[in-house]
Amino acid sequence: MNILIKNGVIVSAIDEYKADILIEDEKIVAIGTGLDNRADNIIDATGKYILPGGVDEHVHYGSFGSMTFETSDAAIVGGTTTIVDFAPQQKGLSIKESVKLHNETLAKGVSVADYSFHCVVTDPSDKIFEEIPTLAKEGISTLKFFMAYKGTPLMIDDSTIFKALQVAKDSGVTIMVHAENGDIVDTLQKQLISEGKTDPKYHADSRPPLVEVEATKRAIYLSRMADAPIFIVHVSCKEAMEAIRDANIQGTPVYGETCTHYLTLTEECLAKPNFEGAKYVCSPPLRKQEHLDSLWEAVNKGWLLAVGSDHCAVKGGFEKGKRKGMGDFSTIPNGCPGVQDRLALMWTYGVEKGRISRQRFVDLFATTPAKVVGLFPQKGQIAIGSDADIVIFDPDFKGIISVKDSLYGSDYNPFEGLEQIGRAEKVFLRGKLTAENGKFLGNIGQGKYIKAKPFGLCYENFKNSNTKIQPKVIAE
Amino acid sequence: MNILIKNGVIVSAIDEYKADILIEDEKIVAIGTGLDNRADNIIDATGKYILPGGVDEHVHYGSFGSMTFETSDAAIVGGTTTIVDFAPQQKGLSIKESVKLHNETLAKGVSVADYSFHCVVTDPSDKIFEEIPTLAKEGISTLKFFMAYKGTPLMIDDSTIFKALQVAKDSGVTIMVHAENGDIVDTLQKQLISEGKTDPKYHADSRPPLVEVEATKRAIYLSRMADAPIFIVHVSCKEAMEAIRDANIQGTPVYGETCTHYLTLTEECLAKPNFEGAKYVCSPPLRKQEHLDSLWEAVNKGWLLAVGSDHCAVKGGFEKGKRKGMGDFSTIPNGCPGVQDRLALMWTYGVEKGRISRQRFVDLFATTPAKVVGLFPQKGQIAIGSDADIVIFDPDFKGIISVKDSLYGSDYNPFEGLEQIGRAEKVFLRGKLTAENGKFLGNIGQGKYIKAKPFGLCYENFKNSNTKIQPKVIAE
Amino acid sequence: MNILIKNGVIVSAIDEYKADILIEDEKIVAIGTGLDNRADNIIDATGKYILPGGVDEHVHYGSFGSMTFETSDAAIVGGTTTIVDFAPQQKGLSIKESVKLHNETLAKGVSVADYSFHCVVTDPSDKIFEEIPTLAKEGISTLKFFMAYKGTPLMIDDSTIFKALQVAKDSGVTIMVHAENGDIVDTLQKQLISEGKTDPKYHADSRPPLVEVEATKRAIYLSRMADAPIFIVHVSCKEAMEAIRDANIQGTPVYGETCTHYLTLTEECLAKPNFEGAKYVCSPPLRKQEHLDSLWEAVNKGWLLAVGSDHCAVKGGFEKGKRKGMGDFSTIPNGCPGVQDRLALMWTYGVEKGRISRQRFVDLFATTPAKVVGLFPQKGQIAIGSDADIVIFDPDFKGIISVKDSLYGSDYNPFEGLEQIGRAEKVFLRGKLTAENGKFLGNIGQGKYIKAKPFGLCYENFKNSNTKIQPKVIAE
Amino acid sequence: MNILIKNGVIVSAIDEYKADILIEDEKIVAIGTGLDNRADNIIDATGKYILPGGVDEHVHYGSFGSMTFETSDAAIVGGTTTIVDFAPQQKGLSIKESVKLHNETLAKGVSVADYSFHCVVTDPSDKIFEEIPTLAKEGISTLKFFMAYKGTPLMIDDSTIFKALQVAKDSGVTIMVHAENGDIVDTLQKQLISEGKTDPKYHADSRPPLVEVEATKRAIYLSRMADAPIFIVHVSCKEAMEAIRDANIQGTPVYGETCTHYLTLTEECLAKPNFEGAKYVCSPPLRKQEHLDSLWEAVNKGWLLAVGSDHCAVKGGFEKGKRKGMGDFSTIPNGCPGVQDRLALMWTYGVEKGRISRQRFVDLFATTPAKVVGLFPQKGQIAIGSDADIVIFDPDFKGIISVKDSLYGSDYNPFEGLEQIGRAEKVFLRGKLTAENGKFLGNIGQGKYIKAKPFGLCYENFKNSNTKIQPKVIAE
Repeated sequence: MNILIKNGVIVSAIDEYKADILIEDEKIVAIGTGLDNRADNIIDATGKYILPGGVDEHVHYGSFGSMTFETSDAAIVGGTTTIVDFAPQQKGLSIKESVKLHNETLAKGVSVADYSFHCVVTDPSDKIFEEIPTLAKEGISTLKFFMAYKGTPLMIDDSTIFKALQVAKDSGVTIMVHAENGDIVDTLQKQLISEGKTDPKYHADSRPPLVEVEATKRAIYLSRMADAPIFIVHVSCKEAMEAIRDANIQGTPVYGETCTHYLTLTEECLAKPNFEGAKYVCSPPLRKQEHLDSLWEAVNKGWLLAVGSDHCAVKGGFEKGKRKGMGDFSTIPNGCPGVQDRLALMWTYGVEKGRISRQRFVDLFATTPAKVVGLFPQKGQIAIGSDADIVIFDPDFKGIISVKDSLYGSDYNPFEGLEQIGRAEKVFLRGKLTAENGKFLGNIGQGKYIKAKPFGLCYENFKNSNTKIQPKVIAE
Repeated sequence: MNILIKNGVIVSAIDEYKADILIEDEKIVAIGTGLDNRADNIIDATGKYILPGGVDEHVHYGSFGSMTFETSDAAIVGGTTTIVDFAPQQKGLSIKESVKLHNETLAKGVSVADYSFHCVVTDPSDKIFEEIPTLAKEGISTLKFFMAYKGTPLMIDDSTIFKALQVAKDSGVTIMVHAENGDIVDTLQKQLISEGKTDPKYHADSRPPLVEVEATKRAIYLSRMADAPIFIVHVSCKEAMEAIRDANIQGTPVYGETCTHYLTLTEECLAKPNFEGAKYVCSPPLRKQEHLDSLWEAVNKGWLLAVGSDHCAVKGGFEKGKRKGMGDFSTIPNGCPGVQDRLALMWTYGVEKGRISRQRFVDLFATTPAKVVGLFPQKGQIAIGSDADIVIFDPDFKGIISVKDSLYGSDYNPFEGLEQIGRAEKVFLRGKLTAENGKFLGNIGQGKYIKAKPFGLCYENFKNSNTKIQPKVIAE
Repeated sequence: MNILIKNGVIVSAIDEYKADILIEDEKIVAIGTGLDNRADNIIDATGKYILPGGVDEHVHYGSFGSMTFETSDAAIVGGTTTIVDFAPQQKGLSIKESVKLHNETLAKGVSVADYSFHCVVTDPSDKIFEEIPTLAKEGISTLKFFMAYKGTPLMIDDSTIFKALQVAKDSGVTIMVHAENGDIVDTLQKQLISEGKTDPKYHADSRPPLVEVEATKRAIYLSRMADAPIFIVHVSCKEAMEAIRDANIQGTPVYGETCTHYLTLTEECLAKPNFEGAKYVCSPPLRKQEHLDSLWEAVNKGWLLAVGSDHCAVKGGFEKGKRKGMGDFSTIPNGCPGVQDRLALMWTYGVEKGRISRQRFVDLFATTPAKVVGLFPQKGQIAIGSDADIVIFDPDFKGIISVKDSLYGSDYNPFEGLEQIGRAEKVFLRGKLTAENGKFLGNIGQGKYIKAKPFGLCYENFKNSNTKIQPKVIAE
Repeated sequence: MNILIKNGVIVSAIDEYKADILIEDEKIVAIGTGLDNRADNIIDATGKYILPGGVDEHVHYGSFGSMTFETSDAAIVGGTTTIVDFAPQQKGLSIKESVKLHNETLAKGVSVADYSFHCVVTDPSDKIFEEIPTLAKEGISTLKFFMAYKGTPLMIDDSTIFKALQVAKDSGVTIMVHAENGDIVDTLQKQLISEGKTDPKYHADSRPPLVEVEATKRAIYLSRMADAPIFIVHVSCKEAMEAIRDANIQGTPVYGETCTHYLTLTEECLAKPNFEGAKYVCSPPLRKQEHLDSLWEAVNKGWLLAVGSDHCAVKGGFEKGKRKGMGDFSTIPNGCPGVQDRLALMWTYGVEKGRISRQRFVDLFATTPAKVVGLFPQKGQIAIGSDADIVIFDPDFKGIISVKDSLYGSDYNPFEGLEQIGRAEKVFLRGKLTAENGKFLGNIGQGKYIKAKPFGLCYENFKNSNTKIQPKVIAE
């Protein structure tokens, strides 16, 4: 059944123009005028923007104590049609086995958004380094390592990351790192707790910006030493962002993203009374306003590539989840839900505040994350041949963000009470209308596993990579 | 008459995909598949790239001793469908009068490419500062000032540029500068000539990189002092480029372009025997290889926005033009022809050498120059509603650049003998096929004057400009 | 008559230690213990610091409307035993003739402090460039040029400064510049006056920091282009200081000084009521507190070499001098008196506030200025063979700075009312006690003209200059 | 017995002048002229420079497999009168116990040079952090930590260094680090060995500059996070030096030294045939020429504070020591002897080549190292009240460095065959002539333990430290 979305203004990462979009068999087949007679169904989008469905390259569905894929309808109603989940390596299993297990037990037949995976390496035996060059053909193009969480299997030493970078680059796998100095965090946590500083607000004191900056710079040096691209996830502070920006300018293939909450919430949230600060405990922690300003500048100028949600709806929510950390902030389950509100927050506090243009919004929300992970051009844009993942966006909607409207299965929303301008009026996943005005209209399991291609964006300016990532399409 | 360009691979500044393009009444009206039955005429582009017609934001047709618009067929056959010419202010005339005079005596009814104008201010009386805020509505959105050429009316003092910046910003006029320290150039010229160093190669010694770097930095300070955007034309050296890049990062709204010859020719050309070095005399002068490398990096990374040709085919060519400067390099008529070979050079030495992607090529060649000057989205992209200025590009063509094939009316080509890969096989100007394989098929006077809109790209991140340059299209 | 200063603590630029000083025939002949029997006269300095007599490398005695050398007793009582005056070139006269005339008509037989000269070039005919290489043997090792004061003979173009740098370097003459963009100052002055902004406080608005920063950077480029050292006088703002610091680090032989008032007074002084702001009109103007903080850091870290006074006691003082500029700030005579209070201000607001050590104080107050101008080691330190210019400093004195105690012949003191800690208890000029507790004990004309040696400190790291400035003393 | 050194040219860190020096009871008591009648013994130094005895702040006598204090006569004949040795912590012992043990078993009654200690912390139990604040009163003012040597007790984690910085700052103990990323070195060593790359030249490949740069930057962040001064020992490469320089400029109290061999030998030495490269194995390794150039600039400009020798004469020398590492470069005993040739190398390749002035030489060789360690003003300068550690230096001597003349007990000299200009003709230790023209004239055990004072130079610009390090001497 062909659908024509008519009279909207299509926004891309470089322009915007009025045109109709014809959808056929899950794909976009024509854009322009005069297409009415080819449509079975015409949807009028007069006065609306037409955006590509969002690509959230940073979500947790089932890892680290989070809710699972059943709740991915939250993504859909929020205009995000593709999510990239972190599949943790299981002790003793290979990367491929771990991803397969994660998919089959949690995502397959359950996810309502299209999805792909990063693998989080936590058991880096010698076999892992042999396996890495073989991942690309399995559709795994990104691996994540933690430089923090001392005392848990998550924390990985420099040597391992270095070796991973060495073996990953020839096959175009992108290494991602969570950059915080685990040693110093651990020391500060112990010092604070021993001083009786146990409230959520001390979470920020235990992970000050310099802890992130140091690890970010170390990651940059690992990239330089291994001569391989690296991607820093959830950059939260000015100096870390500048380190990435400046190293990139000087020729190191280092890139980064930030997340919605680092752009919209400050560390003052952590001091909310009645332990409510715990709702905002995530790592790196929320920062002071100057960092927010700096991160907005960074996403506007392209110094950071994408805005993920780092969605992690802790099981049990606030009451049965977060409260477990009372009396010791270092035991509060980490994570903030955000996948549903990413579009609304970026639009309201970015576009409407004049901090980013609509073009930059599309780029950060969909196009570039798809390129980073290796899902472009199937995902991330409105163009002929791409999946018909489309958001009809009503810029005139006005509302208030609330847990009442949140579908991700928690008892709180960290953005509760914030003003929202604009809304995903209709969301299409591969041509099928699947949400309308915040209501999910689709089915459990409708989401499809999208294998990621290697040599993503971080390889773009990497030596000799031009030919690799841009095969002569014409010669096909 | 509707035309369908079929089976090509459309390249934009962010992506590329296979689709057909339907042209109707000078405009692009549909892109996709299934459009055959709407076409009167189908052109098969299998195995070809489809590029937007080039926008050359830096040409001289009739100013400073150059050939005039009759020779703009050189642009067309080279795949450039829009040229932006420098109209010099006439002594005693206003800016608007000068542009009008230039248009009516030289361009109107003559130009074969679509065209727009920058005005070069050379007689900055008080009236000029009153006139500047009124230019936008006349379609003049850019003004150029020279910081060099001491002893001629071209050279403008800091005070004038400062005042022009002050009065231009509210109406969105972009101030452009030729940045070389005229004082030092003049001193070095006299010192060199007095030492008997009269050959063309001393042209480079009289304008070393630092002369450009100093003036570039001064221009940046003028921009900061006046709190207004500035655009540096024909950046030719590494340190000047870095000054622009770094000031922009620090928040100064400064931008720049480079030109084809600064990317492909070195200062060694100036030392060619038999006075042939004079063919390459332009200002700033050609530089050493390290600067070329640095400029390629800059255009790839987006630190410079565009690649113009600074086309200036000196009347009389080499024999009757350039030779006038024998015995004193400082009297050699300045200028290099380049409008015809811009596409070929950027593709061959950029894309084919792996220095830029096809996306960056399109951005530098068409999209961003159109945005800088205020011609976007009418010009500079392939999208619904834009002018059907289209190049069907054959990536498999191989040839040698030669004056034999050059239409711009000179007796030499500075790129003579260079290898060329790829060629504009067919060029459409507003939907009309106007060149094929280097042959001009159009008519004198077919070019249309395109008025430039104010608040071009240099105002993009300028405070409060978001609303100005991105009106809610939907509200129209 | 031999004098022994006993029991004091001698402070040098690198250390301090308790020892006695034996003076004989104007010179220091021994330092240590057991010297009593060689002294005719023993002065007990128990509990005092022994400092070298100050060298003020920036004073105006007779130029630009200032009081003349009769008032140099102000220097002496303030602990400054050597002053370096700016002798302006006279229209049509050579540099040597101008300095000679200035000396013979104003200083010789009059000055009570030892003195030397910089010449200010204001009539840069071709002959001047021929004369510069001959200055060293006449004892003129520094020349100053103004980049500001448009519309007066003071303002010098880039070409002239460039040529001066070219011809000065081989003979070790140091080029100094007053760095403000005269074009922009002139424009801003006219704009402000035309808006009715005529009060002294607008003086600061007419010369904002960027005006100084731009000219400082331009001076740095002139130094780089001519490959010659340059010295920036009276640096008043953070970014200009950083430009000097960073260029120096990158290898440009650029250096600078600041002045007492830029370290201790803010631009708020210019807003004092009843036209009193005029007392503080000097150029560059006083700045905001952040610049003061930055300049203290700079002198502490050695990023600026010296602290001069830029002493310029305007004839007629406030009532008959400064008041001439009522109704138009741009006509207020420029200049602040400061030579008398330099020691007290640097000690009280530097040493006592913990911003500089006593060692840095001595370095900035005496040692390094003497090295910059070419008067070291005769002046600027306490060492065997140096002139016995010595200050016995009482660190326990407490007082208030006041015009009542000021000897420089004006009706106001810009530092009026500021707390003072420490005082020059006794001042010796070439072994002769010449001031005591603020009372001048010497004679008119006791000051001696000290010829400056070329290849001063700014040449220290200049290529091949090591051998020039540090001849093998031993071989003598 | 009083000694007068007559007619020499005394060189200090800021000046040089001809004067006589009177020595009495181990101290300098007078400098000047007319002192003959107070002398029992007059030594004529006509044509010689008089330098302070050297302070080598980085030697190994008895640690890490090195020869012991019997061979400290090598220091004396080379003009170094004070050595600062690294005393390693013994497993289970406290810092004080370890230093005491090291002193009593190795140095006391044996050393021929005056000496002091740094302690190397290798067993950082909780007690150590309690002990650190008590060290100052025991004369231990510096502690060293290794960031390298994975798999040995030497390698210390970030947490420990961070905590040491936290507890050391209030009592003025200076934390020193050996900055190389032990993780990466270990990985590279294993990778190289597994590839059969076992020769000494691969030592350099296993510790490339970036390994040092990363650790240096990490150390800087540890300093920033703990808000405490840090000192980086043996900086060997450009980018590490620049990191220190730039962080210091930005306000981090970070400082560093380099060593003689990093200024004079390149990594090519490691490729010498017949396993001779092993003679040059030390860590960090020798570097390429560009780093040497950069380090000379750094010591000249004051970006690095001192030049130590990192003297470490491996027991058994080349044949019985270094050869143990045949077949596996990673097992070659680390260390280069250099204490004897430090003066000659710095003079010949520094002063004589025009890279540093004689003043800078004295500063780097004696004055500043004494200040860093807390031995100034007793050691490190020629001034009244300081120890009479004096070198009469003959600048006209010419020779060739050779193991034949080396007293440090090895079978090779890494500087073998290098030209030497100038020599310590006579060396006085606390007033006693103890070496002459390379011959040691003193006795075993003549060296005295000098306790180091806290709040050394690295605390100089540290907040509130001004009062701490510069007590009002006068009040004594």
